[in-house]
Amino acid sequence: MSKVTCDIGISVDGYAAGPNQRVDEPIGDRGELLHRWMFEEAEANAEIIESVTDAGAFIMGRNMFTAGRGEWDLEWNGYWGEEPPYHAPTFVLTHYPREPVPMKGGTTFHFVTDGIEAALARARDAAGDRNVSICGGAHTVNQYLAAGLIDELRLHIAPMVLGGGERLFEGVGDIGLEQTAVSHSGLVTHVTYRATAPRG
Amino acid sequence: MSKVTCDIGISVDGYAAGPNQRVDEPIGDRGELLHRWMFEEAEANAEIIESVTDAGAFIMGRNMFTAGRGEWDLEWNGYWGEEPPYHAPTFVLTHYPREPVPMKGGTTFHFVTDGIEAALARARDAAGDRNVSICGGAHTVNQYLAAGLIDELRLHIAPMVLGGGERLFEGVGDIGLEQTAVSHSGLVTHVTYRATAPRG
Repeated sequence: MSKVTCDIGISVDGYAAGPNQRVDEPIGDRGELLHRWMFEEAEANAEIIESVTDAGAFIMGRNMFTAGRGEWDLEWNGYWGEEPPYHAPTFVLTHYPREPVPMKGGTTFHFVTDGIEAALARARDAAGDRNVSICGGAHTVNQYLAAGLIDELRLHIAPMVLGGGERLFEGVGDIGLEQTAVSHSGLVTHVTYRATAPRG
Repeated sequence: MSKVTCDIGISVDGYAAGPNQRVDEPIGDRGELLHRWMFEEAEANAEIIESVTDAGAFIMGRNMFTAGRGEWDLEWNGYWGEEPPYHAPTFVLTHYPREPVPMKGGTTFHFVTDGIEAALARARDAAGDRNVSICGGAHTVNQYLAAGLIDELRLHIAPMVLGGGERLFEGVGDIGLEQTAVSHSGLVTHVTYRATAPRG
């Protein structure tokens, strides 16, 4: 049975992005250091890196797609160049409608204006029997966690303090988390949790 | 060479104690659930549990010793009964002087009113060639981290969200953290970091 998964990198103090997110630093000040393990230890983490993009559809917040606000800049097609790493339908949460944007390699960005549940329904439909992955950022993941809609949360904890920025788990309530797997390389600890809806 | 170590349990959202700390819930609401692994998986974690109290002297904040404030209630000798688990000199940071309190089994509580560096100097002296352990709570650990005085930070990350309480890493600045060991049992992920003073 297919699952809703979420891979997200955080600092030891729980931030998924540093302060001052902007177009030339989309993960904020020092935020890119969260992901050193993906580049400097790619071989040791090959299996996990592959699993991050192993889904039949993806969902992301608008802020992960662009630093822009308000009406769309139609020249902007995300941070990933002509061939994004998703290779599947990717649903961007937004308040501003926009026509779908097909990219090379199978990624098509769809813009969803009617909320997280509608986006998930469309993603599930697009994914068929494959998983749906919630890509981020923290605010989007927190909304899905609070709604009890993520089955498997995969944290990638980097050995650094960000000290500010976008906090994971903010406002999610007393969600259930069952630790199901732990692994690591020198620059990261990976912990997988089975997540369930907030109690009470 | 002896080290300054710190073992501290946190939730996935970075709290070392829940909200509403009080005498009958010293770790705050749901805070005791951080330490389930110590009791429910004691055997699997035997080595780590032993290492937590393997030091020649200990330092803790007043709030870890008592829920009281202001002048001392001289009837109160901590949360641990007649024989605390430290079995060594234990220095309590406070603004209120108090005579040392010897307990059974080798623990003597000393009350230090001249700050974290003075407490550490006394603890180092008492520990000889053994380690000094900073016990907590979060506020005390954060002060020592910010001052660059902890060599080895051992996080014990529990699969739960506390949503509020005492946050580890608050205000510590851009400390250096090098991940040196990772292990786990079902109810916890243990991560050890070599810590260094904040940069800049």
